[in-house]
Order: sequence, then C-alpha cells, then structure tokens
Amino acid sequence: MPAGTMERVLIIGTGLIGASTGLALRSAGFAGRIDGWDVSSLERTAAAQMGAIDAAAASAEEALAAASKADVIVLAVPVLAIKDWMQRLAPVVGSGQLITDVGSTKLEITELGRSLFSAADTAAFLPGHPMAGKESGGAMLAEARLFNGAMWLFTPSTSESSPMEKEWRDWVGFFGARTLDMDAARHDELCAWVSHLPQMLSTALAALLEDKFGDAPEIGAIGARALRETTRLGASPYSMWRDVAMTNTGPIADTLFALEQRLAHVRENLRTPELRDEFALANRFRQRR
Amino acid sequence: MPAGTMERVLIIGTGLIGASTGLALRSAGFAGRIDGWDVSSLERTAAAQMGAIDAAAASAEEALAAASKADVIVLAVPVLAIKDWMQRLAPVVGSGQLITDVGSTKLEITELGRSLFSAADTAAFLPGHPMAGKESGGAMLAEARLFNGAMWLFTPSTSESSPMEKEWRDWVGFFGARTLDMDAARHDELCAWVSHLPQMLSTALAALLEDKFGDAPEIGAIGARALRETTRLGASPYSMWRDVAMTNTGPIADTLFALEQRLAHVRENLRTPELRDEFALANRFRQRR
Repeated sequence: MPAGTMERVLIIGTGLIGASTGLALRSAGFAGRIDGWDVSSLERTAAAQMGAIDAAAASAEEALAAASKADVIVLAVPVLAIKDWMQRLAPVVGSGQLITDVGSTKLEITELGRSLFSAADTAAFLPGHPMAGKESGGAMLAEARLFNGAMWLFTPSTSESSPMEKEWRDWVGFFGARTLDMDAARHDELCAWVSHLPQMLSTALAALLEDKFGDAPEIGAIGARALRETTRLGASPYSMWRDVAMTNTGPIADTLFALEQRLAHVRENLRTPELRDEFALANRFRQRR
Repeated sequence: MPAGTMERVLIIGTGLIGASTGLALRSAGFAGRIDGWDVSSLERTAAAQMGAIDAAAASAEEALAAASKADVIVLAVPVLAIKDWMQRLAPVVGSGQLITDVGSTKLEITELGRSLFSAADTAAFLPGHPMAGKESGGAMLAEARLFNGAMWLFTPSTSESSPMEKEWRDWVGFFGARTLDMDAARHDELCAWVSHLPQMLSTALAALLEDKFGDAPEIGAIGARALRETTRLGASPYSMWRDVAMTNTGPIADTLFALEQRLAHVRENLRTPELRDEFALANRFRQRR
C-alpha cells in the first residue's frame, strides 16, 4: 500500500462503483477512515454493512461537514449529480484536499473542475473514469476486485499533480487497475464510439423489437445468441444513461449518424460485392481484438 | 431410436452442420449407412475420420449415384448451393425417398421444392432449419450434441407427410432438438429480425470502427464488454452470409431501414424524455427473455 498521508476518504454515492471503491481501498490495505453518503438510505446502509464505508452520513449536510475534513473525496454519482456536488463542495474544501470523480463523461466535469479548483487555495481536482461496471448497479453488487485488470482513465486539465493526487493514483494502481491519461474531449469522443454507441444501438434494437413483436412467443422460440448479445445492453436503466446522453450529446449523435449511414450502405448493397468488402473490414476489426 | 425403414443417409456438405448431423444420427442409435460429400476434400476427409460419415464420395457424380440409393438426403450447404443440388437431384431420386435441407432462408428453397418434388413419383421434400451453429464452421467443430436443446424449424409446403418425412422428424427429436413448423415467408421475415439484422448490424458497426480507427491502440485499451459483444458477429465470414443476403434481400432491407429510422429517433431525442421511453421499451423487451 502507498505510504502516504491520506487518512480520511469520503465517498459520495455508495452504489456499485462507490462501494467497490471503499472495498478496494480496504482490500489494498487502507487503514484510515472512510465516510460515505448516498441519497438512498438502502444503498448507504448496505455499503456500511458490507464494510465499504465505516459510517454513513445521515444527511447531505452531514456529508458536506465530513467533506471539510476528508483528504480525498470520491464523487461516484451520475454525471449531472457530480457537477452539483462539485459546486456544493467548492466553498467547504481547500488546499491539500483532493476531489476526484468516476463519471462516465469527462469534458463538462473537467471544465467545471478547472473553473472551480484551479486557484492556489482550492482543493485539487482529478477527473477519473474507471472502465468497470455490471449490468445492474447498487452496493449489493460491489466487489473489492471490480477494478482489478480494468482501465482507469484520468483526464487532468493540468500537468501538475498535487501530493494527494499522486497518492490517489497509487491507490488506484493498488486496486489492480491500469491507468491512462487522456484529453477530456478525446475521452468523450472515444467513449461515444466504444461505449455509448453500443448502448444506444442495443437500446434502439430492443425497443424496435418490443414495438414490433411485444409478447409474441415466436421471437423467444427462435431468437438465439445473436439476438441475446446484441440486445443485452437494452436492459440498462435510463437513470444511468440520461446524464451520459445529456453531457455527451454531440459525439453520441455523430456516431449514431455515422452508423445510420453505414446501415443504409449495407442495405443498398445486400446483392452487390460491396457487402463482401464490408464483411472483410469487419473481419479485420475483429482479428485485431 | 425410431423404429423405421431409413437405412441409408446421404449428407451433402460435411461442414459443421452436416457433420454434426451425422454424429447426432450415430449418437441417437442410427445403425445404417451414412455417405457424405463435400467440395472440400479436407472437410469430407475430416467428417469420415471423426465417424460423422462412413464413406466420402470421391466426386459430385459419385454423390449423385449415392443419392439414387439413399432413403434420406440432407443438404447442408449454403442456400444457393442447396438450390443447385435440388435441381441436380430431381432427375435421380424418386418416390419413397426424402430430401431435406438445413438452409438459413426458406422461401426460395420451399418454392423450388414445391415445383420439383410435388408429383406422385417424385421424392418428398422437407425444408428445414436447425437454429444451431458456432462462430466458425467446418467439420472439425462438429458435435453430436450441437442440436440438443436447439430449435429445428420446418417450413413444409403441404400438410401431408410421407412416412420417410415422419421418420426424419423423429430422428431430429432424438437429436434433442425441439421442432416447430411455420410458413416459409414468415420464417424468413422472423429470421431477418432475430438473426440477419443482428448480423448485418454487427458487421456494419465493426466495419465502421475499422474504417475510423484501424490499428489505433486506444480502442483496444478502452473498449470493453459492450464493444466486444456488439461487434462479435463481425467475425462471421461473408461466405456464410452472401446467400442469406441474396435470398432474403427484401425482409433484411426492411429490418435495416427500420433500425436506421429508430437510430435517427434516438439521435434526435438524446436530450428529451423520448429517450426515457426508448429505454423503457428496451427494458421491457429484455425482461421477457
């Protein structure tokens, strides 16, 4: 474990990612105090019972009070709620402290962080995004090993690192995650392609099939692995994706438009050699993975 | 095992499905003779070595000679090749014999079967489609249990069954497959939705990403399960899908067009409550499965 000065951590949002972060800290040997807060009393109670946090704040105000004493504050709520918390935290935190987040989109958060936390007397802000998750959320699914082998991206707006930021990066490494720094806008564009587009596509396909077939038994009878795989993400809840769509609208729209055009190209070439070229490109993409 | 009169089976096309059919027959207790033919000498030799067939014909002409003596002829080649074989077989087979196929599209095959095999002195024809397969083809991947628990669809054009057809249906049941009869046009429309659309979609997405990112390392670094699942079918070979696209063009084009429109709807509503409705529909579709 890192030999550092981090003694108190506050986790805002003790769902799957937040509670897993607490468990991963303990598993990596963190011996300090972990406070937690979640708007859902079920989530914060579950996180406390499983040992992901030592104590749950009883209210958002109590969480703000804990924030003033924390070395590191981890924001593990949806993206728009992360931005709200950044605004609320700014007046009560200061130099020497670190705020970091795990939000799925990074440009808006990174820009807000630069405007709120760039002065000498403010806390440091490190925008982060662990590429880990499950089909469903919630503290009950949390695991200390969730980040083991996963990629944990950072999109810092400055090249300087505060000591507490360096220490947090060490802890993330001790979780078993690999880390990579990238530009926030580039992050959002890439995530639109590899994560948000597959999600919207799967949702659109499942919604289309639901509209067309409803509870007709035939789809269940003859649909096989191809259908299951391409619609699996259709189970993802809107609550997790609303903020992603709101804060990465342009890049997601670009990828959707590109796919619409590509599907039209396939449709217009079902009987021409262009279809062979399309399969060859797709084969090459898969051979690289 | 069925107590019947089927003593000789000929399998045309000893790849994954054809060789698995031979193995499944043996595993279910079939004690008669199984001949096989494949244009690829590697495939037919492999099928013979693994016991899926007793002997491989040395040429297409020899296979035609074997056909004249077979009780059941299983056509396990791509759809256009199935149609070719139906034409070649018509003059050499006759009443009492059964031709059945395993092609992925059924309307063209069923209509050709009706025109070739409806008279009193012709062989019977039973169009079939086992919903089983693997990512790759070939005899080397064949398994006796491939059809166990799978759906084996039939699209007969008449409601009458010849004795040999009834016996073949019994064998399919002994393979562990469930069977369902449906109209050929309906089959092709449903398969367009649950199989061909997911394939074309996955191919288009993988081809688009290959065009856009090529060998850029970032996609590999941050792409996770969502990307892997939605592009997995992109590895499917054109050789398997060309005939499907050629013989089910209209229904596939309809599904692609519907999905294009649905993606545009999602794209135009990334920031409106319509997106919530889309997720709700998709959630409902998944809850049924």
